[in-house]
Amino acid sequence: MNRKLKMGMIGGGQGAFIGGVHRIAAQLDGLIELHCGAFSSNPENSKITAKSLFLEDHKAYDTFEEMIIQESQLPEGEKMDFVSIVTPNFAHFKPALMALEYGFHVVIDKPITLTLEEAKQLHKKVKETGLLLCLTHTYAGYPMVEQAKHLIEQGKLGQIRKIIVEYPQGWLSSAINNKQANWRTDSSKSGISGCMGDIGTHAAHLAEYISGLEITKICADINIVVPNRELDDDGNVLLKFNNGANGVLIASQIAAGEENALSIRVYGELGGLEWHQMEPNSLILKWSDAPSQVYRTGMPYNCEKSKLNSRTPAGHPEGYIEAFANIYRNFSVSLNNYLDYPNNERVNNFPSIEEGLRGMAFIENVIASGKSSEKWYNFKI
Amino acid sequence: MNRKLKMGMIGGGQGAFIGGVHRIAAQLDGLIELHCGAFSSNPENSKITAKSLFLEDHKAYDTFEEMIIQESQLPEGEKMDFVSIVTPNFAHFKPALMALEYGFHVVIDKPITLTLEEAKQLHKKVKETGLLLCLTHTYAGYPMVEQAKHLIEQGKLGQIRKIIVEYPQGWLSSAINNKQANWRTDSSKSGISGCMGDIGTHAAHLAEYISGLEITKICADINIVVPNRELDDDGNVLLKFNNGANGVLIASQIAAGEENALSIRVYGELGGLEWHQMEPNSLILKWSDAPSQVYRTGMPYNCEKSKLNSRTPAGHPEGYIEAFANIYRNFSVSLNNYLDYPNNERVNNFPSIEEGLRGMAFIENVIASGKSSEKWYNFKI
Amino acid sequence: MNRKLKMGMIGGGQGAFIGGVHRIAAQLDGLIELHCGAFSSNPENSKITAKSLFLEDHKAYDTFEEMIIQESQLPEGEKMDFVSIVTPNFAHFKPALMALEYGFHVVIDKPITLTLEEAKQLHKKVKETGLLLCLTHTYAGYPMVEQAKHLIEQGKLGQIRKIIVEYPQGWLSSAINNKQANWRTDSSKSGISGCMGDIGTHAAHLAEYISGLEITKICADINIVVPNRELDDDGNVLLKFNNGANGVLIASQIAAGEENALSIRVYGELGGLEWHQMEPNSLILKWSDAPSQVYRTGMPYNCEKSKLNSRTPAGHPEGYIEAFANIYRNFSVSLNNYLDYPNNERVNNFPSIEEGLRGMAFIENVIASGKSSEKWYNFKI
Amino acid sequence: MNRKLKMGMIGGGQGAFIGGVHRIAAQLDGLIELHCGAFSSNPENSKITAKSLFLEDHKAYDTFEEMIIQESQLPEGEKMDFVSIVTPNFAHFKPALMALEYGFHVVIDKPITLTLEEAKQLHKKVKETGLLLCLTHTYAGYPMVEQAKHLIEQGKLGQIRKIIVEYPQGWLSSAINNKQANWRTDSSKSGISGCMGDIGTHAAHLAEYISGLEITKICADINIVVPNRELDDDGNVLLKFNNGANGVLIASQIAAGEENALSIRVYGELGGLEWHQMEPNSLILKWSDAPSQVYRTGMPYNCEKSKLNSRTPAGHPEGYIEAFANIYRNFSVSLNNYLDYPNNERVNNFPSIEEGLRGMAFIENVIASGKSSEKWYNFKI
Repeated sequence: MNRKLKMGMIGGGQGAFIGGVHRIAAQLDGLIELHCGAFSSNPENSKITAKSLFLEDHKAYDTFEEMIIQESQLPEGEKMDFVSIVTPNFAHFKPALMALEYGFHVVIDKPITLTLEEAKQLHKKVKETGLLLCLTHTYAGYPMVEQAKHLIEQGKLGQIRKIIVEYPQGWLSSAINNKQANWRTDSSKSGISGCMGDIGTHAAHLAEYISGLEITKICADINIVVPNRELDDDGNVLLKFNNGANGVLIASQIAAGEENALSIRVYGELGGLEWHQMEPNSLILKWSDAPSQVYRTGMPYNCEKSKLNSRTPAGHPEGYIEAFANIYRNFSVSLNNYLDYPNNERVNNFPSIEEGLRGMAFIENVIASGKSSEKWYNFKI
Repeated sequence: MNRKLKMGMIGGGQGAFIGGVHRIAAQLDGLIELHCGAFSSNPENSKITAKSLFLEDHKAYDTFEEMIIQESQLPEGEKMDFVSIVTPNFAHFKPALMALEYGFHVVIDKPITLTLEEAKQLHKKVKETGLLLCLTHTYAGYPMVEQAKHLIEQGKLGQIRKIIVEYPQGWLSSAINNKQANWRTDSSKSGISGCMGDIGTHAAHLAEYISGLEITKICADINIVVPNRELDDDGNVLLKFNNGANGVLIASQIAAGEENALSIRVYGELGGLEWHQMEPNSLILKWSDAPSQVYRTGMPYNCEKSKLNSRTPAGHPEGYIEAFANIYRNFSVSLNNYLDYPNNERVNNFPSIEEGLRGMAFIENVIASGKSSEKWYNFKI
Repeated sequence: MNRKLKMGMIGGGQGAFIGGVHRIAAQLDGLIELHCGAFSSNPENSKITAKSLFLEDHKAYDTFEEMIIQESQLPEGEKMDFVSIVTPNFAHFKPALMALEYGFHVVIDKPITLTLEEAKQLHKKVKETGLLLCLTHTYAGYPMVEQAKHLIEQGKLGQIRKIIVEYPQGWLSSAINNKQANWRTDSSKSGISGCMGDIGTHAAHLAEYISGLEITKICADINIVVPNRELDDDGNVLLKFNNGANGVLIASQIAAGEENALSIRVYGELGGLEWHQMEPNSLILKWSDAPSQVYRTGMPYNCEKSKLNSRTPAGHPEGYIEAFANIYRNFSVSLNNYLDYPNNERVNNFPSIEEGLRGMAFIENVIASGKSSEKWYNFKI
Repeated sequence: MNRKLKMGMIGGGQGAFIGGVHRIAAQLDGLIELHCGAFSSNPENSKITAKSLFLEDHKAYDTFEEMIIQESQLPEGEKMDFVSIVTPNFAHFKPALMALEYGFHVVIDKPITLTLEEAKQLHKKVKETGLLLCLTHTYAGYPMVEQAKHLIEQGKLGQIRKIIVEYPQGWLSSAINNKQANWRTDSSKSGISGCMGDIGTHAAHLAEYISGLEITKICADINIVVPNRELDDDGNVLLKFNNGANGVLIASQIAAGEENALSIRVYGELGGLEWHQMEPNSLILKWSDAPSQVYRTGMPYNCEKSKLNSRTPAGHPEGYIEAFANIYRNFSVSLNNYLDYPNNERVNNFPSIEEGLRGMAFIENVIASGKSSEKWYNFKI
């Protein structure tokens, strides 16, 4: 049975950025509706937010604890089905754990928690409860990312030899002072890393997701470029993967003039591929002995997962919001399946707790490597 | 007061394409909700569609007449606020006219009607009723289109001298047989033109919208390239504008290999600009004596209207669906204003009946010019 | 036998532009040497030019007549093998005719003469003498132009249906006053056309060369945009080809901000191709049902003619000068063959008198069409 | 006085690649002529090469020693002015040293010698003799590289913070067997490094040349990817510069599908720049708070050095051969100055012995770092 799923949001009050994106993304396909929220640690803000979202007053809770408890007491069909946690990193773990304990499924922004240790506890809880947890690694939601993954799985590039993944941004090139900047550069809100936690994790995830490989060793140069900043705002990392491939990961928030230029190049024995988040509907394939090719979102020759993640015919550009919506759409399909057949084995079509664990491990390993005078640091969870 | 507006949809049943896009676009910002629908001329399809959209059964009407009449009898706050008409061209006029007569505002896909004569009648009705009519010329919803318009208005290019607007598609390169193709190549559904009506109108609108000029003369080469097709699938048109500028409009559905490659170039005394719908977040400015520039969606230096039409920071690509949603969002703001202050003068921030009239005039003029052996045909409404 | 061929240049003195390009291009492959010159109508300039080019004084002639006569009296092996005529249009015909009469082969810049009538006389003379005449339609010398022509000849695109060729420049956007601008906007130097003669001819040649088709009808909008200019500086032309294909040719010198943006798109039943002179080493192939492809200069998969026109491995960009040099190199190969086997039938691998005739016909037809109120003008020679 | 300079070539016989490029580049501007050569270690090949180049037989020498000695005994004005050494790396040092000892200036391909030690000896000899030595770091010859350097020198980007330089090629992705591949993968011909010596040196030079900075520390991951290869074919290097900036250098010959994709990005406090060798006529400037800009070869706004390195108006693409020719042209200007005023202080406008030394140091340091388990290796000469 296909239900319209009910979402309870934690975070995303007035002044937040990513919360609004989550709301658009979640509701885009008409499969999920915003049901309630604890939108802010400030109850007043939560109320105002709810009102601006056309929620009834009693659906704006003062705290996430209140929301989880009260919703859990409502009858089936009237309570929320899952929570969506869109707070800064430090406020992920507790609501996620509590939601699972009260039987609610969880959608959560990345990085999954403040520390690897929290991620491990959350992992344990997810396994215990059997509930769904969806980690919104947005960039995995692009149709051409699926197509890239598919072509590599099919062996089109041969054995993978080299991966270059980059995430240059320029918005923290100077010492700015605003809500988005402040929490991301504050260890009590963000954890031990700034740049690597915020965007390095996206890059690492993308490299592993597309290639199907795992990072096994890293050698990190982690930098604080803007004076008086507490956390890293830049870094370059040499990588080794579990099949012997080498790689480079570059993430920066001080690459002045760059917007959000996540990109990846993967080279195999037979050819290479290239994808740029800012022109996400093209996937370039390069061959040693044939003309290069450009695969395009929405074309019939794409793989099934790629086509599922596309809503319009080729040439109607699909962007960041649609990619985000794909994560929610795929989650909603799985959740409907779960509700119908709670005991079936599940195959997630979205990033989940395992990716969350690896992301936190990436943060801890890359910061440790940055401090080490040893060249190669073994990636461990 | 900000209300969540209630939309009644006409068309957009199972198997349709653009209806689904309208639903996503209308609801994307959480300002509009799907309230009811007459989704198909087949009542069964309408019911199934409603169910798949989580509407209650009684909100699926068998016919648009039934929907308009019954909704009009509901109390304020329980009835729909406006209709959205997403049927093929031949089924635009009657529901639009009836909706206006019953006091409902109207959103309508382009081209506005089957004939210029219908458009004139509709124009009269809109003026009589004072109700809002929004024509979804999607491409006008892109942030960089607003920025282009703004830069030209500011005189950055100087006097405009030349406009090249193109809309090549390849999907009708062979004699395909499917729902989308069939009605677009059938004069009883589409009107007197295929290609020029379907996409030439977008190109003509874009040229006039960005430049602020009006086409005054045309010289059209209108072609049926694929054998046995009833309506034009290709055309090239020389243009003259009311300030003396010249131009070219190319529209084709048989440009094999092209997706949806609407683009425009405008040249003035001082420089030129270039925009491509398939990479919509970049606007290229070229100068005679300075480095060319690339304006980007979401950057703070853009004009207010451009920034209003953008939801995410620069580098998070916004696409076709967001552009479409901007049309609905701007309509919903105007409609809320109307509901609060019905007697105020209105400044529409969306394409309306005037653009609809000019679009129908474009179709009739361009087809007439195509048949004429005179070189220049005076554009008349 | 491979000889180093001796070139006598007519025109190209101090202050000229294209003469210097001809000298570089002619000598680039070491197959041709500058032997003598009548570089200017001003004998002093001719002497200074010769000196700057390290020619001995007696190799700088005061007039082309003197050069042709005196060189013709030198023994074999000491006299020039061919003349290269790089003067403005009005000074092409007389030296070309005289050179042929004295038994010298001819390289000549385009457009070949001032009038179609002159071109016809020159055609007659070339046929009478059996000597070689090479017209430097530079853009035909690019490797990817040959590859495009080859793919169309092979039928990869199927029947050709539509051609869009453009040549926007912006350098005459205002009323500038310099040597290059002055003669090109003066009918006594340039002939009856400015823009169409200077660059429209390149565009028309490229369209016919790549497609293998011939223009049969035109409908031209010819404009003088900058006030007080004598000759056209802009134009848009509808085209019909001898296989029924339609097309558009746009040429402008007032497209402010454009550099030298010659480009062509050709659409057939099965796909389309696209080439841009400013990024000349890529040739884009677009397919209805497969990923688009990018062919690249210097790759082994290219056709033989394309590979012949390339000097370096792929990724070492080859530009305008190399394209120009290809014309001369191909001419020098043919001329060496001629000198060895003067009675053999010849297959020119370079543009020649026929292309020159068509170019002049294009100019006369397009200007006549521009003045006509008839829509379609039959292209005639 | 401007002389046409006489070049004696060492290497570049039948079957070689880069020798032919040197000949075209050297002679392109008509300022240098090929005077003699010892084109091959095989005297027969040398004779055949000379004949194909239209040299008289006695100008083909059997050995470089013979050429240097015999030419040195010719009267002024009849002997060569300089040698151009275009042999594989192992055969650079001896002819360069001998040429200098006999009073000939030297042009030499990079890397300058087989070992750093040889480079130091050559450096000493250059200083002793005061003769000119020009190292053909081709990529420094591009107009937009000069423009990039100029903009950074002018402080447009502010303090430089990060440099990413890459040189991916794919031609050695499999174990191919041909003349070009064989010597480059053989330590007796190439020295201790394959990829880093052949192309890593270009990347390192470009980074230092454009930025005006010096590499001070490196952390290298040096790889042999194709089995049974003797020398590195791939590597990733973390960099630190003398102003504290960080960087990444990636060079690979196994990036399958890549042609010759040298590129650089430099980020400063205020903005970033980006240049790609395969589209060399565009230089992208990105700003934090203004539209990005594209500087183009040949435009009047460029700096003097950039304009000097350009031969045609903007939009006539200039490529690899022109960049190469710029090195020779700048060398020929300096050499003419030297010949006129041998005692003047000289300011080289081309890469010279210092760049040669740093290049060899780069090779030795990067290979040593690759073998070290220490993270940071101090760059030393």
